Amino acid sequence: MVGMRGAYGYNDNGNEGGVVVGGGEAEAEIAAMAVLHKVAAPPAQSTASKLKARVKETFFPDDPFRGFKGKPLTTKWVMAVQYLFPILDWVPSYSFSLFKSDLVAGLTIASLAIPQGISYAKLASLPPIIGLYSSFVPPMVYAVLGSSRDLAVGPVSIASLIMGSMLRQAVSPAAEPLLFLQLAFTSTFFAGLVQASLGILRLGFIIDFLSKATLVGFMAGAAIIVSLQQLKALLGIVHFTTEMGLVPVMASVIHHTKEWSWQTILMAVCFLVLLLTARHVSMKWPKLFWVSACAPLACVIVSTLLVFLFKAQKHGISIIGQLKCGLNRPSWDKLLFDPQYLGLTVKTGLVTGIISLTEGVAVGRTFASLKDYQVDGNKEMMAIGLMNIVGSCTSCYVTTGAFSRSAVNHNAGCKTAMSNVIMALTVMVTLLFLMPLFVYTPNVVLGAIIIAAVIGLIDLPAVYNIWKMDKMDFLVCLCAFAGVIFISVQQGLAIAVGISIFRVLLQITRPKMMIQGNIKGTDIYRNLHQYKDAQRVPGFLILTVEAPINFANTNYLNERIKRWIEEESSAGTKQSELHFVILDLSAVPAIDTSGISFLIDLKKSTEKHGLELILVNPTGEVMEKIQRANDAHGHFKSDSLYLTTGEAVASLSTFSKMTAP
Amino acid sequence: MVGMRGAYGYNDNGNEGGVVVGGGEAEAEIAAMAVLHKVAAPPAQSTASKLKARVKETFFPDDPFRGFKGKPLTTKWVMAVQYLFPILDWVPSYSFSLFKSDLVAGLTIASLAIPQGISYAKLASLPPIIGLYSSFVPPMVYAVLGSSRDLAVGPVSIASLIMGSMLRQAVSPAAEPLLFLQLAFTSTFFAGLVQASLGILRLGFIIDFLSKATLVGFMAGAAIIVSLQQLKALLGIVHFTTEMGLVPVMASVIHHTKEWSWQTILMAVCFLVLLLTARHVSMKWPKLFWVSACAPLACVIVSTLLVFLFKAQKHGISIIGQLKCGLNRPSWDKLLFDPQYLGLTVKTGLVTGIISLTEGVAVGRTFASLKDYQVDGNKEMMAIGLMNIVGSCTSCYVTTGAFSRSAVNHNAGCKTAMSNVIMALTVMVTLLFLMPLFVYTPNVVLGAIIIAAVIGLIDLPAVYNIWKMDKMDFLVCLCAFAGVIFISVQQGLAIAVGISIFRVLLQITRPKMMIQGNIKGTDIYRNLHQYKDAQRVPGFLILTVEAPINFANTNYLNERIKRWIEEESSAGTKQSELHFVILDLSAVPAIDTSGISFLIDLKKSTEKHGLELILVNPTGEVMEKIQRANDAHGHFKSDSLYLTTGEAVASLSTFSKMTAP
Repeated sequence: MVGMRGAYGYNDNGNEGGVVVGGGEAEAEIAAMAVLHKVAAPPAQSTASKLKARVKETFFPDDPFRGFKGKPLTTKWVMAVQYLFPILDWVPSYSFSLFKSDLVAGLTIASLAIPQGISYAKLASLPPIIGLYSSFVPPMVYAVLGSSRDLAVGPVSIASLIMGSMLRQAVSPAAEPLLFLQLAFTSTFFAGLVQASLGILRLGFIIDFLSKATLVGFMAGAAIIVSLQQLKALLGIVHFTTEMGLVPVMASVIHHTKEWSWQTILMAVCFLVLLLTARHVSMKWPKLFWVSACAPLACVIVSTLLVFLFKAQKHGISIIGQLKCGLNRPSWDKLLFDPQYLGLTVKTGLVTGIISLTEGVAVGRTFASLKDYQVDGNKEMMAIGLMNIVGSCTSCYVTTGAFSRSAVNHNAGCKTAMSNVIMALTVMVTLLFLMPLFVYTPNVVLGAIIIAAVIGLIDLPAVYNIWKMDKMDFLVCLCAFAGVIFISVQQGLAIAVGISIFRVLLQITRPKMMIQGNIKGTDIYRNLHQYKDAQRVPGFLILTVEAPINFANTNYLNERIKRWIEEESSAGTKQSELHFVILDLSAVPAIDTSGISFLIDLKKSTEKHGLELILVNPTGEVMEKIQRANDAHGHFKSDSLYLTTGEAVASLSTFSKMTAP
Repeated sequence: MVGMRGAYGYNDNGNEGGVVVGGGEAEAEIAAMAVLHKVAAPPAQSTASKLKARVKETFFPDDPFRGFKGKPLTTKWVMAVQYLFPILDWVPSYSFSLFKSDLVAGLTIASLAIPQGISYAKLASLPPIIGLYSSFVPPMVYAVLGSSRDLAVGPVSIASLIMGSMLRQAVSPAAEPLLFLQLAFTSTFFAGLVQASLGILRLGFIIDFLSKATLVGFMAGAAIIVSLQQLKALLGIVHFTTEMGLVPVMASVIHHTKEWSWQTILMAVCFLVLLLTARHVSMKWPKLFWVSACAPLACVIVSTLLVFLFKAQKHGISIIGQLKCGLNRPSWDKLLFDPQYLGLTVKTGLVTGIISLTEGVAVGRTFASLKDYQVDGNKEMMAIGLMNIVGSCTSCYVTTGAFSRSAVNHNAGCKTAMSNVIMALTVMVTLLFLMPLFVYTPNVVLGAIIIAAVIGLIDLPAVYNIWKMDKMDFLVCLCAFAGVIFISVQQGLAIAVGISIFRVLLQITRPKMMIQGNIKGTDIYRNLHQYKDAQRVPGFLILTVEAPINFANTNYLNERIKRWIEEESSAGTKQSELHFVILDLSAVPAIDTSGISFLIDLKKSTEKHGLELILVNPTGEVMEKIQRANDAHGHFKSDSLYLTTGEAVASLSTFSKMTAP
């Protein structure tokens, strides 16, 4: 009646997996009964020890203190200090040859950091000098606390954009510059607090919820929003909209055609072409990375000279204007915890904190994996968080590891975080002595620098790859992109995260269930749809469920399985009448109380239809709960639990043959 | 060197699963290479057809129109009408004997519905007569549209409580009774709209997100909140707080001790004891179900007589007062779509709609499974939704299938939805002729009736069962309970749903990963922790992942696997040196672009450590994406893909033995 009767011969004293060919004889059948392997529950554990294991796996998956075990107390102390200050890892063995590499890299990224710092501060509607301040203190802090060797720290475009747009909703930077500055510092403080807390509370996995697809779409959208904002500087428009969306900005641009200044536009086109060419050169020949690294500073110098020589500021070219010399002033007295603005600053801090953390950690991980060293995500979060808290007290706004500058740092051959120190010192020199030189720097060149920097965030090959791999991911990517450019930066992000999470929930609400068949001549059971040589076993309905069984899917599973049984029963001829429903639980990692109730209900309802429900290979937690349900109600005796589908089919078809008339 | 070399002999022309015992000879090794089974990708499908299948499985898992296939057009039409009006299923074959059963059941639930209707309307701060109206029209509508045979339709305690508490936040029912009534009808309209839409859009799975644990905790909390509200009536307090939480209500009760009326309290104690005793009797001897079913009406009659005879209303006993005779008046002109209240009514409709839907569908399913018939969740939603839309136009507020009355209906032997019609007609007679009899009904007896009804919602055995089964579920239950009694009904519910969903996400963020070992003498590989007789295979690290691999867990998987490899490599002696990392993907139902990147990265980084990464048994979707990644980059050639762990180990250990010096 049933095709498969292969049965294992249990061979206890050797390494060879010997297998007896099952014939039609009674002996073989008895042998088949004898070698069944029992489903075991994991060894009993107390709730407390289970909880401990769960907490450890959730919050300390990297087990950061595993090296500490069995060491003497003093060693433990030294290791703890080294853990907190990664600088101690490399400073003792620091050599002159390492310094030479770091010096070159540090100077290179400084030449990028100075113009970008000024530009990004303007993007956040902050005074340009704040961007330079933010390229001085935070890199020094990071050099002490950070564990990445390649991260170049400073202000970044997207966090600047978000901070500016969120704060501008409540306060006008033109009307109340001091208040705006205070709010920026306070938001930075909260951003740092959020980041450090995530690290300390080991909640770093929060940022994992920003999937690659979300980030690709979000970054591309943000790059376009940032570029659109630069149209003000590039076209020389004076009365520009304060909104950020694609539609209002384009409307504003078209509406103010009269304000367009041809001198500004000419300059914009020239420098943009220059910068993009430099970028193209560096991308084509990676050894020429310094071309694009130095281009922005070169543009600033050339454009400043041009303005100075031709007195272009009198011909419609707007310039930065006077900047004060001097280092960061303390700003802890500027932190504003006024309840009126507390909600705004906390929210701004949360959003910019998480976004900049995502960028920083991702950049750190990317380069760590290139050079094959480890970056501890939670430790990085603490470092970035502390850096921002210190920054908020020293006139800096949100900073993190910037992707473009870190890439330059890496290409320039940096060896340790010393390159950040070199960069900071260069910025310091600039702050102390060179500020008057920026008086005539035209805003248009800053706009061009920003566009050339953010254009790299539009990653078309990644979008194509996502499209090819996974259409749902592509949808997420598209929603993030459209949300950012048409609604707002924060809401676009929220929509994309929402869709990503909804998708994960949907996978659980509608788990994959497959009918399995036997691959001819073997003991292997596989999905009928995927394996053409798999064949149905008459009399059996073999199902796999590929998801945790819980409240979100028990109703679905119940209806779906009943429908299958119904279809089988109505389709079956007398010969292939359905007797057994096998539920393979190998791919069910967890089950909850609703799930257990579902299994019990299914058992009862299959019995009503004269069928037997067999469970195969429940994993640890699931087996434990089935056992507990058994203790209470006795639904799943050991004769309805099998270790493999093969053993279940062999044993049950033997049995039904023996009891058949 | 390696213990297992069992290999399948491929036997093509028979049903017997024959297996060749693998020896040390070269022939056997070549045989082992020959019988490897290839991992297949599912047959290619276009994106559109995949999308269609996915949509069908998501929204039409029950395939409601499968019976329609291949039928002539007229039959299809008849079936469609029958689908829309389930009454047509049973009316043609309705008999006198069925009617007798339904008559008894209908009269029994009517005796329960009349006092409960009045009580629940008061709970929602609505005029008592609205409760009776709501027990007249909606049951008639349900009888035509509903597919459950046991559901007794009418107002229910929790939806009444929530509607009252949400609307009272904006409008005082005492100061603006007409406006309050308008808002109640409008909320009912939106509740019906939400319910019907969920059904029509086949989004019924939304209510699945209320897990059993959430509902048990929520119901218990709501029962306590409802009971606390009755202290006003039971103690005769006049100035009662309008808040609902445990703390403010108890404070108010203690603060107003002077208002306590001993006559009221005496009456409250007597009737409460009576009702609870009746309940106890019915629970102990299910055949005496009519005792608790008739007790509320008996109490109303007795207490009304007592008040009437002793003129107790003059001794501090508050009474219902004059009620107008007459049937439901149309109320569509009372629906209020004023933007000022639109947000409130939509929100109230959403919350009460979903809560009452959950109760109605769950009750329907429970009794359907007892009598072994099918209830179509989405169709039920449409029926309940339409019932509420019609109700909102005929002076009714939110109604659904009530658990307690449905249980009485079932016990009383109802056969079809006709029992609802009988109940509605009884209520109609009451509305037309018997309203003046309620003038002297004391409010205290209504309070006692509510408490006796909601006490059944506190399901301690279920709580104990949840505690025993699953500690996390217990936590969810506890949070729902505490949230409801200390914060608010809606927020308690939101917290519990949030925790349930967070838990599901956490399972994905921290998926179970296990090291597998070989069960001696077989080809079976199982979790080492669970199976004590499973043994590590030297040279191999065999891992299973039990979750979809996606953005939420790739970082974790990456770190965790690298740590395992590191530990293995440092612990391994020369003899048992690690060569192969096997990743068993049997339990990975889906993968996204982040997941594919992770696999590629893992492949590269294991190669750097001189290891080989082997993938075993990728399921349909996963295999498809691996193949696509292969087409683009060629990372996973067929020699790193195996169908079973057994075949992979056999083949690879043979190979490494052949190439060993």
